[in-house]
Amino acid sequence: MTETYEPNIVLENGKYNVIGTRPVRHDGADKVTGRAKYGVDYQSSDLLHAKFVRSPHAHARILSIETEEAEAIDGVLAVVTSADLPEAADKVISLGEGSANVKYLRNNVLATEKALYKGHAVAAVAATSPHIAEEAANKIKVEYEILEKVVTAPEGMADGAPLLHETLRTDEMGETADTPSNIAEHFRELKGDVVTGFAASHLVVEREFDTQTVHQGYIEPQVATALWNNDNRITVWTSTQGSFSVRDEMAQVLGVPDSQIKVVPMEIGGGFGGKIPAYLPPVVAVLSKKSGRPVKAMMTRQEVFEATGPTPGSYMKVKIGADDQGNLQAAQAYLAFEAGGFPGSPVGAAAKCVFTSYDIPNQLIDGYDVVVNKPKTQAYRAPGSTNVAFATETVLDELAQELGIDPIELRLRNVAKKGTRLAHGVVLPTVGAKEVLEAMQSHPHYKSPLEENQGRGIAIGYWFNVGFKSSVSIAVNNDGTLNLVEGSTDIGGSRTAVSMQAAEVLGIGAHDVHPTVVDTDSIGNTDVTGGSRVTYATGWAAHDAAVDVKNQMLERAAAIWDTEASDVELVEGVFKSKSDGKLTLTFKELAAELDDTGGPVMGRGTVDAGGLGAGGGSFAGNIVDVEVDPETGKVAIKRFTVVQDVGKAIHPSYVEGQMQGGSVQGIGWGLNEEYFMGENGDMRNATLLDYRMPVANDLPMIDTVIVEVPSEQQPYGVRGVGEANIVPPPAAIANAIHGAVGVRLRQLPMNPGVVTKELQNGSNSK
Amino acid sequence: MTETYEPNIVLENGKYNVIGTRPVRHDGADKVTGRAKYGVDYQSSDLLHAKFVRSPHAHARILSIETEEAEAIDGVLAVVTSADLPEAADKVISLGEGSANVKYLRNNVLATEKALYKGHAVAAVAATSPHIAEEAANKIKVEYEILEKVVTAPEGMADGAPLLHETLRTDEMGETADTPSNIAEHFRELKGDVVTGFAASHLVVEREFDTQTVHQGYIEPQVATALWNNDNRITVWTSTQGSFSVRDEMAQVLGVPDSQIKVVPMEIGGGFGGKIPAYLPPVVAVLSKKSGRPVKAMMTRQEVFEATGPTPGSYMKVKIGADDQGNLQAAQAYLAFEAGGFPGSPVGAAAKCVFTSYDIPNQLIDGYDVVVNKPKTQAYRAPGSTNVAFATETVLDELAQELGIDPIELRLRNVAKKGTRLAHGVVLPTVGAKEVLEAMQSHPHYKSPLEENQGRGIAIGYWFNVGFKSSVSIAVNNDGTLNLVEGSTDIGGSRTAVSMQAAEVLGIGAHDVHPTVVDTDSIGNTDVTGGSRVTYATGWAAHDAAVDVKNQMLERAAAIWDTEASDVELVEGVFKSKSDGKLTLTFKELAAELDDTGGPVMGRGTVDAGGLGAGGGSFAGNIVDVEVDPETGKVAIKRFTVVQDVGKAIHPSYVEGQMQGGSVQGIGWGLNEEYFMGENGDMRNATLLDYRMPVANDLPMIDTVIVEVPSEQQPYGVRGVGEANIVPPPAAIANAIHGAVGVRLRQLPMNPGVVTKELQNGSNSK
Repeated sequence: MTETYEPNIVLENGKYNVIGTRPVRHDGADKVTGRAKYGVDYQSSDLLHAKFVRSPHAHARILSIETEEAEAIDGVLAVVTSADLPEAADKVISLGEGSANVKYLRNNVLATEKALYKGHAVAAVAATSPHIAEEAANKIKVEYEILEKVVTAPEGMADGAPLLHETLRTDEMGETADTPSNIAEHFRELKGDVVTGFAASHLVVEREFDTQTVHQGYIEPQVATALWNNDNRITVWTSTQGSFSVRDEMAQVLGVPDSQIKVVPMEIGGGFGGKIPAYLPPVVAVLSKKSGRPVKAMMTRQEVFEATGPTPGSYMKVKIGADDQGNLQAAQAYLAFEAGGFPGSPVGAAAKCVFTSYDIPNQLIDGYDVVVNKPKTQAYRAPGSTNVAFATETVLDELAQELGIDPIELRLRNVAKKGTRLAHGVVLPTVGAKEVLEAMQSHPHYKSPLEENQGRGIAIGYWFNVGFKSSVSIAVNNDGTLNLVEGSTDIGGSRTAVSMQAAEVLGIGAHDVHPTVVDTDSIGNTDVTGGSRVTYATGWAAHDAAVDVKNQMLERAAAIWDTEASDVELVEGVFKSKSDGKLTLTFKELAAELDDTGGPVMGRGTVDAGGLGAGGGSFAGNIVDVEVDPETGKVAIKRFTVVQDVGKAIHPSYVEGQMQGGSVQGIGWGLNEEYFMGENGDMRNATLLDYRMPVANDLPMIDTVIVEVPSEQQPYGVRGVGEANIVPPPAAIANAIHGAVGVRLRQLPMNPGVVTKELQNGSNSK
Repeated sequence: MTETYEPNIVLENGKYNVIGTRPVRHDGADKVTGRAKYGVDYQSSDLLHAKFVRSPHAHARILSIETEEAEAIDGVLAVVTSADLPEAADKVISLGEGSANVKYLRNNVLATEKALYKGHAVAAVAATSPHIAEEAANKIKVEYEILEKVVTAPEGMADGAPLLHETLRTDEMGETADTPSNIAEHFRELKGDVVTGFAASHLVVEREFDTQTVHQGYIEPQVATALWNNDNRITVWTSTQGSFSVRDEMAQVLGVPDSQIKVVPMEIGGGFGGKIPAYLPPVVAVLSKKSGRPVKAMMTRQEVFEATGPTPGSYMKVKIGADDQGNLQAAQAYLAFEAGGFPGSPVGAAAKCVFTSYDIPNQLIDGYDVVVNKPKTQAYRAPGSTNVAFATETVLDELAQELGIDPIELRLRNVAKKGTRLAHGVVLPTVGAKEVLEAMQSHPHYKSPLEENQGRGIAIGYWFNVGFKSSVSIAVNNDGTLNLVEGSTDIGGSRTAVSMQAAEVLGIGAHDVHPTVVDTDSIGNTDVTGGSRVTYATGWAAHDAAVDVKNQMLERAAAIWDTEASDVELVEGVFKSKSDGKLTLTFKELAAELDDTGGPVMGRGTVDAGGLGAGGGSFAGNIVDVEVDPETGKVAIKRFTVVQDVGKAIHPSYVEGQMQGGSVQGIGWGLNEEYFMGENGDMRNATLLDYRMPVANDLPMIDTVIVEVPSEQQPYGVRGVGEANIVPPPAAIANAIHGAVGVRLRQLPMNPGVVTKELQNGSNSK
């Protein structure tokens, strides 16, 4: 059941011919017939295959690496260790949604001195077959000194904890400490005075929360092939969310100029933030340099779990105070996030998202980025925001319950809106948080009856979205179609959503545009497919490129009609002379005349579409009904409605797909998914059988309500829609469980064991 | 020995930093290490292989084609005949240097009703292996009614000659005839009155000439793979001189819109005009549609000779009259060219080139396009011009001899120059014919001593060159390099020559530009790599795209300096404020600032660079010394100097390469190459052993003299350089043979048998 909630606002660009329709995606045939070429499909006649040697220990000093025996095996052409990578500068580069220290990137790709998590790459082999490579990898002897490990943020912050790095010297207040610690960074956001705010509150609720490490769970493992050519040009074929960010990352790790590297983005089988880092490309590039042949590496599922970046487990404490009318007076958060083996958890983003949905006069937020002996965490759909929404939204539910106020009503009383100043200083532009809550409130689901052991929960969540840089070029074919070239790898149908924005400008159909995602040598800089930015920013660039085309075609029509371009207009795909109504040419007719009126027409569009918070971000909300089996603790999702402000839905089916996909990932995170860690800091469930992601029969239909509050920036009012939808589900489910069986869950996942334990403890009385 | 002759003219854009230098080509490493991917290198997991059934007869009616037995073979997935192609419209489309009738294109690709030459494709099979495909092709039974054949133009024009087509009704005067004939078209060019001109002449020489069919002799056979996808999008991977012309041709033959087809140009192993037609792509596309899988076809060498388009054999009569001072008074030509099985020899071009080198007041030229039972002819380097120069330049030599005037001096007295009106009505812009002759006259070679049995000949020749359409897009990388995207397949180093023209605009190095030749979905319309147009027109588009980049970067610098773009200039790669000399940024420095000053910068350049004669065309001349063995008739080239007006040599090494390559092909054409036809109209020497192209030890070093008379149109004064150089060699060699042994050769090739016969006949007395 899909609905569109029409908020009581005026859409500036209300009437479209293409935008808002649901054409078949351009890559549809390739995807459903198996013709699409993914990373693993790259083949070459003299291809070598790489296998990795990985640390079996969560924390260990590497004393020596013996490679001679492996190198002597027939068919082995190259072995690399971190000694084959140049020394890296200790500097931070921007990478898509986040940033990275080059030295950490390098040492994560191939461990130097220490292995910081089980699965950390230590060496790699290239051989004529994967079997020989595997045999050779087994012959590489690594001598380790096993060190004591830490696997959670509180463990890492404890006095006397074993240290991962000797260089981190941040104390709990964010100052430079005298002694090293595992705290990589401290974030503090401050607004007003929480002491006064809490003092003025009628009711204050403060709770602690624990969440586990979860993985993005993309189906396609990481895979990359590289050829380091004799002229030192490097070509990489890989599945990635960002061909240009892979290029940047490789350039830094390999110490070569950006443009010496060409990244060819293959189709991508899911990413969700986890396919931004380049784990394999620098290593296969060096193997290629040493062997003189192209080298391909593909991770196993175990390697994906153990050696790529999941999203962090966290310890959080959230305290909120309200007056007796439910007006929030103060909010405070303490957030300790696991960075993994190297600094860089999304706790900084989490600190900015924890209270963004509300206009609260007094706020204090402290966030700690804590290194632990787990794989370096990476982005995962609205990184950090799901963790903190679990805390904030369950505390608010408790507040509403205590104050006897409807939970949606409580939120509406405090909702953030245009002009709200957030704790990190940003003043919100037009956003749709209120409209999302209103759509939830008026939805039939919210008033439908419940049965025994069933409960209903609601929650909302936010993601900034980003703008960043995109480039598009367009060429007009003589048959009136367009060749559209973009650098944004297409994860969720963005070829079509981007094409539609060009088609709309020129009054032609979505299928009159042929989009191609090209390599980094064939288009201008384009940032990652992430941050919910592609439809927003690359669509914007496509709009601008189409305007460039339009302006040139106005000139051509004017030349044909012996008039001025200012006398020509393009109305719904027809060029018209304003001064002579009889003079008209359809877009296709004029396209057929281009060769005879000056040659081909190309347009270009490049944008810097803003940073964090571009377009005002997006708010999403859930209404969830669960049924809890009081004996087994199993939680079944009975009904699920997701509401999201998308600004303007370019292709509503893909918007709904994002809303449904994010919801399902949020449900999995809430109910079952976790890195189940063994005593030695090893993940005990590193297979898709044991790492329990939701499957179809775990879920009801995910109903969607699209809310359209146009952003103030993007030409069509688009907001990114890929992320905010993962944020509310764990909180909404926790609130629903409380409704069903009266206990409040404050740890994730809320699996049968945890629910049963809480049912026995009766933690609601806390 | 390479020299540059500096003509006594002022170069408008004399000073360049990049243009005129000789950087290593961008694709050099790929080409010399075997990494470059040619058509045959395309691989796919479920690839089928195609084989053709071809007519064993030069002229035959196809009575029936039985395919059942072939289709029943295990592993055969599709069989096609012309019945699988849609009916074609009887209309002419433009294709690169020439044009083509769609119906003829279709029927040449797969014979319909009649086979018109030995090797004409009749059916094709796709199977899981080439061996099965071959076996199946052998099982296809074609019943033929063998018809009488014609193989030369005079035979084809004879009364009562067997007719290839029933639809051609042109009489010898170019009027519509009552009865059908083999004359497809008659061209007449007329200037002044030749009757008066010859009457006013002191001396008139009239001679007849015969030349044989010759092949371009590219090393790589034709190869193509096609996938007709489930969504009816067709992708073709092929070696071609023009990805867009293959697209157009396929669209016409298959009856689908242009943009439904994507042509991916693979690297090309030579073309010289012969890789413009799409013989294989439409057939493998239909095989793919029927089988549902990608299908690849590669010709054998025999198929290349028998079933692709060579350049025509010709019968010619040329008559020239001069006064006693050698001033030409009148010139007349009768040209009958073999079209091959379908209309379309280059006789129209030949009729326009036969006297172009000279300013002659009275001219009459008749050209006949005659269908014969040989493969349909195609372009080959300056198509048609080599044939007619052989006639004109040897007649002039005889005139000079009779008048006692130095042959260069005779030519200089009559040379065409700016303002000369040609017989076809065109008035020449600035051209370098005079400067070429002067460079020849002053060259030491011209005055060097000769030995016994040695002779020296000279000749000059012309090719129009074409402009046509090209598109280029450029993106600026943050490291100050450029991504340059073009649609021109690179045969002779044009990636580099095009890149250099962009680099020059921006004051960066040739290797700061990374050129990529992309598919037809990724760039604007770009005409064929032919007509000597790529460096001229695509280079022009690159210049314009770079100017577009420059203008945007002036804006960025102005923004940084808080000034106006008009206050900023780019001087040799450095942006400078005119008002504040301290404000400077190198191109690379400013490139690094783009992300922070508005986002990426892309530029676009599209040109319609004119038609036939763009830039005024190019003149080339030769000085050739030969030694004739009077016993065997073998002609050895002892010394060879080629002089050409190139306008401006962007990359002199590639210009010299073109001059040398064209010269060598002209030498082969002059001395040895021919389709040696058997009694049944079958080519008896269809292998590279028997078809005698020159090899290294047949040749001396080909010395080059680059003359630079800038064209008036192109931004750098470029003229195309790929073709005019093949024109003079046969004539120059014939003149040299006369100098050596006193006989005048008037048929090609001048192989030992022909030379011996003429020595015995003493034809000089004619």
